[in-house]
Amino acid sequence: MNSDNFSLSEKIVSPSYIRQGSQARRGHEQLIRQLLEQGKCPEEGWSESTVELFLNELAVMDSNNFLGNCGVGEREGRVASSLVARRHYRLIHGIGRSGDIAAIQPKAAGSSLLNKLANSVVLDVLKLAGVRSVASCFVVPMATGMSLTLCFLTLRHRRPKARYIIWPRIDQKSCFKSMITAGFEPVVVENVLEGDELRTDLEAVERKIEELGAENILCVHSTTSCFAPRVPDRLEELSSLCSKHDTPHIVNNAYGVQSSKCMHLIQQGARVGRIDAFVQSLDKNFMVPVGGAIIAGFDESFIQEISKMYPGRASASPSLDVLITLLTLGVSGYKKYLSERKEIYSFLAEQLKSLASAHGERLLHTPHNPISLAMSLDGLQANSDKAVTQLGSMLFTRQVSGARVIPLGKEQTVSGHTFRGFMSHSDSYPCPYLNAASAVGITREDVTVCIKRLDKCLKTLKKEGGTAKNCSPVSSSNQEVSIGE
Amino acid sequence: MNSDNFSLSEKIVSPSYIRQGSQARRGHEQLIRQLLEQGKCPEEGWSESTVELFLNELAVMDSNNFLGNCGVGEREGRVASSLVARRHYRLIHGIGRSGDIAAIQPKAAGSSLLNKLANSVVLDVLKLAGVRSVASCFVVPMATGMSLTLCFLTLRHRRPKARYIIWPRIDQKSCFKSMITAGFEPVVVENVLEGDELRTDLEAVERKIEELGAENILCVHSTTSCFAPRVPDRLEELSSLCSKHDTPHIVNNAYGVQSSKCMHLIQQGARVGRIDAFVQSLDKNFMVPVGGAIIAGFDESFIQEISKMYPGRASASPSLDVLITLLTLGVSGYKKYLSERKEIYSFLAEQLKSLASAHGERLLHTPHNPISLAMSLDGLQANSDKAVTQLGSMLFTRQVSGARVIPLGKEQTVSGHTFRGFMSHSDSYPCPYLNAASAVGITREDVTVCIKRLDKCLKTLKKEGGTAKNCSPVSSSNQEVSIGE
Amino acid sequence: MNSDNFSLSEKIVSPSYIRQGSQARRGHEQLIRQLLEQGKCPEEGWSESTVELFLNELAVMDSNNFLGNCGVGEREGRVASSLVARRHYRLIHGIGRSGDIAAIQPKAAGSSLLNKLANSVVLDVLKLAGVRSVASCFVVPMATGMSLTLCFLTLRHRRPKARYIIWPRIDQKSCFKSMITAGFEPVVVENVLEGDELRTDLEAVERKIEELGAENILCVHSTTSCFAPRVPDRLEELSSLCSKHDTPHIVNNAYGVQSSKCMHLIQQGARVGRIDAFVQSLDKNFMVPVGGAIIAGFDESFIQEISKMYPGRASASPSLDVLITLLTLGVSGYKKYLSERKEIYSFLAEQLKSLASAHGERLLHTPHNPISLAMSLDGLQANSDKAVTQLGSMLFTRQVSGARVIPLGKEQTVSGHTFRGFMSHSDSYPCPYLNAASAVGITREDVTVCIKRLDKCLKTLKKEGGTAKNCSPVSSSNQEVSIGE
Amino acid sequence: MNSDNFSLSEKIVSPSYIRQGSQARRGHEQLIRQLLEQGKCPEEGWSESTVELFLNELAVMDSNNFLGNCGVGEREGRVASSLVARRHYRLIHGIGRSGDIAAIQPKAAGSSLLNKLANSVVLDVLKLAGVRSVASCFVVPMATGMSLTLCFLTLRHRRPKARYIIWPRIDQKSCFKSMITAGFEPVVVENVLEGDELRTDLEAVERKIEELGAENILCVHSTTSCFAPRVPDRLEELSSLCSKHDTPHIVNNAYGVQSSKCMHLIQQGARVGRIDAFVQSLDKNFMVPVGGAIIAGFDESFIQEISKMYPGRASASPSLDVLITLLTLGVSGYKKYLSERKEIYSFLAEQLKSLASAHGERLLHTPHNPISLAMSLDGLQANSDKAVTQLGSMLFTRQVSGARVIPLGKEQTVSGHTFRGFMSHSDSYPCPYLNAASAVGITREDVTVCIKRLDKCLKTLKKEGGTAKNCSPVSSSNQEVSIGE
Repeated sequence: MNSDNFSLSEKIVSPSYIRQGSQARRGHEQLIRQLLEQGKCPEEGWSESTVELFLNELAVMDSNNFLGNCGVGEREGRVASSLVARRHYRLIHGIGRSGDIAAIQPKAAGSSLLNKLANSVVLDVLKLAGVRSVASCFVVPMATGMSLTLCFLTLRHRRPKARYIIWPRIDQKSCFKSMITAGFEPVVVENVLEGDELRTDLEAVERKIEELGAENILCVHSTTSCFAPRVPDRLEELSSLCSKHDTPHIVNNAYGVQSSKCMHLIQQGARVGRIDAFVQSLDKNFMVPVGGAIIAGFDESFIQEISKMYPGRASASPSLDVLITLLTLGVSGYKKYLSERKEIYSFLAEQLKSLASAHGERLLHTPHNPISLAMSLDGLQANSDKAVTQLGSMLFTRQVSGARVIPLGKEQTVSGHTFRGFMSHSDSYPCPYLNAASAVGITREDVTVCIKRLDKCLKTLKKEGGTAKNCSPVSSSNQEVSIGE
Repeated sequence: MNSDNFSLSEKIVSPSYIRQGSQARRGHEQLIRQLLEQGKCPEEGWSESTVELFLNELAVMDSNNFLGNCGVGEREGRVASSLVARRHYRLIHGIGRSGDIAAIQPKAAGSSLLNKLANSVVLDVLKLAGVRSVASCFVVPMATGMSLTLCFLTLRHRRPKARYIIWPRIDQKSCFKSMITAGFEPVVVENVLEGDELRTDLEAVERKIEELGAENILCVHSTTSCFAPRVPDRLEELSSLCSKHDTPHIVNNAYGVQSSKCMHLIQQGARVGRIDAFVQSLDKNFMVPVGGAIIAGFDESFIQEISKMYPGRASASPSLDVLITLLTLGVSGYKKYLSERKEIYSFLAEQLKSLASAHGERLLHTPHNPISLAMSLDGLQANSDKAVTQLGSMLFTRQVSGARVIPLGKEQTVSGHTFRGFMSHSDSYPCPYLNAASAVGITREDVTVCIKRLDKCLKTLKKEGGTAKNCSPVSSSNQEVSIGE
Repeated sequence: MNSDNFSLSEKIVSPSYIRQGSQARRGHEQLIRQLLEQGKCPEEGWSESTVELFLNELAVMDSNNFLGNCGVGEREGRVASSLVARRHYRLIHGIGRSGDIAAIQPKAAGSSLLNKLANSVVLDVLKLAGVRSVASCFVVPMATGMSLTLCFLTLRHRRPKARYIIWPRIDQKSCFKSMITAGFEPVVVENVLEGDELRTDLEAVERKIEELGAENILCVHSTTSCFAPRVPDRLEELSSLCSKHDTPHIVNNAYGVQSSKCMHLIQQGARVGRIDAFVQSLDKNFMVPVGGAIIAGFDESFIQEISKMYPGRASASPSLDVLITLLTLGVSGYKKYLSERKEIYSFLAEQLKSLASAHGERLLHTPHNPISLAMSLDGLQANSDKAVTQLGSMLFTRQVSGARVIPLGKEQTVSGHTFRGFMSHSDSYPCPYLNAASAVGITREDVTVCIKRLDKCLKTLKKEGGTAKNCSPVSSSNQEVSIGE
Repeated sequence: MNSDNFSLSEKIVSPSYIRQGSQARRGHEQLIRQLLEQGKCPEEGWSESTVELFLNELAVMDSNNFLGNCGVGEREGRVASSLVARRHYRLIHGIGRSGDIAAIQPKAAGSSLLNKLANSVVLDVLKLAGVRSVASCFVVPMATGMSLTLCFLTLRHRRPKARYIIWPRIDQKSCFKSMITAGFEPVVVENVLEGDELRTDLEAVERKIEELGAENILCVHSTTSCFAPRVPDRLEELSSLCSKHDTPHIVNNAYGVQSSKCMHLIQQGARVGRIDAFVQSLDKNFMVPVGGAIIAGFDESFIQEISKMYPGRASASPSLDVLITLLTLGVSGYKKYLSERKEIYSFLAEQLKSLASAHGERLLHTPHNPISLAMSLDGLQANSDKAVTQLGSMLFTRQVSGARVIPLGKEQTVSGHTFRGFMSHSDSYPCPYLNAASAVGITREDVTVCIKRLDKCLKTLKKEGGTAKNCSPVSSSNQEVSIGE
């Protein structure tokens, strides 16, 4: 309410109480003011009532909510269902304009603010999470893979001759497809085994660049967060290599924001060498629904170039979700999540280690992977050929989600390219294994329950010599389940 | 509640009342049954309570809502903010999998159902709206432009040599950019003036195909819905041409679902010739928030190929919005909207006509455009050079949204290509004009109020001889406003 | 947002768009201003977004939503469940204080405003609905019956000697109990039959007053809205009588606000004689959930006296519901409901008339009852003794709700008093009958469907000679159902 | 979804995933089953999604949500505003019937279940909280005071001759008014000072009973929870007295459910003597919005008698709020709140003690009061006459809510009775003091912040010699504020 309305209220309810109410309102306004002024994630999270007040304020600034508006265009933010209107806080116009997903919309000042603020708050959090020198970013309502595609499509205009993308192998379909969809030929560089870890083969990368000619290479496409025993790529060295050969470098940082190690790698890479853009998932890092990614980089003009490549307006939903979430958590809330994740990572490692030893298996030694862990399944494999996939099925039906079992020697063809040992990031990893990860939002109870159920399954499989009858009917589909993508 | 729980309830509350309650529940179940069985938009719209019951049922089938779930993966559908969880009905996992946006997710049976049903219901509505022989479609959470890009990227794999896209000119940035982003060279075919209408130059199209060689052409990219005085492309003839030259044909049907004429053109085009895919906006046709599109076609396998090109999972938000909306409206509700739109189109035409004649202007004769109308602004232009853009500013500040003014001779460069007479779909349209459209959801009051305000503005401008002081300060930005994209 | 925040926003998004957004906000503020200034129901209904904006503004003024509040009392508006907090718009403190349900709460300026405004808007609507000279009213979160009890308890302090309440019979338990609960002895005055109508026996009332002595009489307790063939009491004459004998007069106007006739009776009664308070249901008149009533009167100090009798704070829920509803409808919306109700009353009468004649029955002639109608069931009764109650059961199981069947000669004891012919407002009404009412919110379809189902039931019963097997199992409980209270 | 619909879903989405979804649904059903079977508060709280699923299930059982319902009654659960419908989960029919607030409604099986379950779950919690032998209770949508009135009105029918209520003094207006409103004459029994505590004068109570004659006494009306230095009444002895004299005994247990001591007193009182009913606030004990109370007792038939005294249907809102809250918290969640409250009580005592000694005051020694504490303000009073009330104002403007300051010798007339030393429960308590309470839901931060602000205020007042200028303008209204009722 404005001051006139407060004055009028004083005639209805005692002035001193109204004055206190109006002062309380200023408390909320003050928080909003800081947000507008600094464009940063607030240190302490906002209450739900401040968040909703703010969103309502944004909504009234959009033309579809103007009381006196009359619309004779083809896109007027009309909504047929009130359920739909409400769930979007009546912010209907989406973000961006025809020409640029980051542009301001004349019809929708509120949605435009939402867009700008979401990008700005997210940028702040990327900095806090470790990439201190990031210059620019934007939220895009597309999967990480499709966002990588957009980066590649943008690079094409800079490097019209380029046909290849150098890609240290990571067995996740969408990573591979992001290059295929953009129309490029991925050059798969196999990883090298160091101890239990699979690491970037730097020499092979350089050899490929030289072999194909830097001018024919669109970029190097590296990865941070990944399933153990693969570990994040050697970003520092790759970035230097790219710098040396004048080759662009795009980093897939899918769920790496939650790990200070991954973020540090990016920061270092950019410091010593070249990183053109790094892309991360919204849902995996910020506990929002699936559907958005952040494209970030160190050169504002290149990031803008990417944002101008998106033809048309886009859904504001992911921006809205991440803004609500970060305002609600605040820096302190988000950091608390991150530190809990880290602690639970250690707890999970411990628990898996003792479980492994109890079953004659071992926790693979993958110190460079800060999120994902792997436990060998040699004994199980020895027991029976099918036992490993059966374990996957059993875990699925017992509501252990996210645990992946990786059998030996699976072959799979993705968009025409055949991968041997698919899912293990390697043609022939020495042993089958099971993955478990400590990702942001995980609880101690998740770990405890998972270990208990896993223990039970392993015992059952051992006893049955691998013929776990109770899960046989779903085995075919569950094999797919165990892929976990 | 299941039958056990109903039985228990009978011990608490009189059995006959509980029995009636349980019977009432079956009423809702019956509606859901029909939806699952037929995959069609219900004839009569559902009540909000049926819709919400259904969405809750879907949500409990997703693993993030399992009461006993433990998650040790990197993507577990965790949500930090309860505001966010609620607004998505706790459907967090999005749609699709790594490999395919239309694929089923093991972790999210409910979201998978949502995705399948949204696509199926939308397909049903496309048929009812006039494209009776459409074979397949899917909702994609991207703008129409980006969806067109995805179609072009898919075609590239079928036609690796192709570099060009033949494009009858339409002055909307995102249409042009959709081709640029995909990495192709648009071949702009100017329209021909027939009376007041701008229509497809069929001969020029054919000439271009022959000139460049069909094998070098990715596709013809045509448009239905557009601003008058341009009219929908001659789809029948273009489709035949494409068929004859074995050239793919992608149709931008942005807001054409709402017009039986546009839909008829597509149906006819596919019958007599070749249409590979047609793409339409969700928000403009179904009154949902900006952010989604429908990619549809007559060959199921090609549409699937496109859906498999999207690398990664995607936001379920647009699918959810359109499903809620269509279930709530039902076929009868949606048809009612369409017929009202048609009536108001006539009303708008009438009103504009008499307004035009009162001000010495005329309603351009564009009978082939079923949605958009144009009124000349010759007199205004004569009055003063700036008057036409001033009119745009004035309408904006008076909360008339969607009315565009098109001055003469504006030149604009989009992604390196310079368009003369930009916004008018023509290098040199004979007169400046104003656009107004009757789009789905428009009300009679929108028209009445718009005409009244427009009348006032025109009078003011006439009186002031074009020096409307009150709107001068915002003129620079409003020029952009008037573009209305 | 305040002006500072708008200024800051101009740096993020184009100033002219923000300015328009801020202007749009003023539109909402303006509506709120009018409400605060005039305390009246707005002529045109508010949009949901204005309503929610307003409620959010109220909520931030309550201490439980102060960002810096610390609470060390026993009642601090804490809420454990966020579902609960949300559904009350975070307005937790209820209305009133220990001493007075209409009093202002220091801890809750917003809730206090809500309370005052709800009372003020309701007062305005009572005036518009016909009681133009009403002086004061308040919403109380209790049933109509309990609210009558509160009125009687208040009168006791004015008339400590009084023991009796004179009550023209109306067969609704809560009316009777309202007097019993207050600790008084109801003096039942039987109605007189005039044609088909049951009307107030004025002479009997006066006789009772004289017989018992006015000083021993707490008040006359009359009724407007009621089931046909009873009609509203002769308020004008009763009020004069009360005036003459210096006896208070409390009117039960349960669902009479919706009828201009009932409201006119009250207005006239107060003009020519004495009405101390009239009480009406919130839910029945304003389409809100059950649970509130309005106590209104012509002497502000007496109404205040009643409000001061409620010991303790009270639920704000009914006030909130009615305020939301009236702001959303506006005067024009509410009037539209009222006029539709009137039209459908005529339609229902017509339909019932022709149905009755088709089945050899007749529509009772009750022109003084503006809401409820009755159709004789003589033929059905003749058919079989049980047929009338069976009809009630059948209608219940066929989801015709609100239709009551009144068999002959039912005897019932309520709080120690035995009523012959209970439900018919008369010891011996000449015929059994069925009631149907046209109450606010009814639709034409309600009537059509009801008539169709009723017709079917009557045919079935006739055919079966009254032994409708399909509904026998629930007959015992359904007899009660048919009472419809 | 029923099994048919799950089967149909298996054709759309992989059967194994649907099966898992359906199994997950059974998890929710199982929780609902336990609730229906046992009528008890679940040990572990339900997730929001189970709660909402359950409420939706209830709603579809009410006739206003029947898809095929037609209504021709005067009360059909119609709702004009969808905002209102939603916030009540479409449960519109309220609770109870004309005759009985605990009765089942034919039109509303779902609301009836809600009512029964709320009562049953609350009964369970009362037992767990310490009154193990409680036999029956019901939630009533009225303030504690009005609920006491209803108890007194019910007793009147059992004791028609009685005129007096014996009432050990407690200075809270609504307690006193509850008797006045019911039409009885309160007989105020002054408390006796034992150390710092004000305790029941048992001899005076017995003397009064004998003096007035037990048959003329409606009941003894005692109190548990209260502001220090008053402490809970000696319930054991009072109950024995009531038993001995055959006098009913009604206990005001306003916010006593949260204290095991208060609950123990009631349990003991009922064991050794007579307690007819005990009444407690919903909001103060269960952190729900203001507006409901629980009437409970040890004799089911008497509690039923009370429930039958409420004439008319009632709001379901308080029942809904408490049911949602208790299902969400579960027994473990509620117990956690209670034990935290107890701990913070000790913390508050400690903090107040050291603050007091720092300012030359002392924490009054009131070990029998388990919730409220008092700190003397002798020094402040000595400083200046107005300083004590000024402290109240200052705390109010500094957003310390719930702290009450009690000056010496305030006289106040409530409903005709003049109380000396009002607010202090005593004609002449030896010193002025400040109250602070540790009530359920309080946090450690509430205490810390309160102590800090209180310290600051005391320092300011000392420095200014009592002429705190900054709060003078609001002093008159704040005096009232400090009453805190």
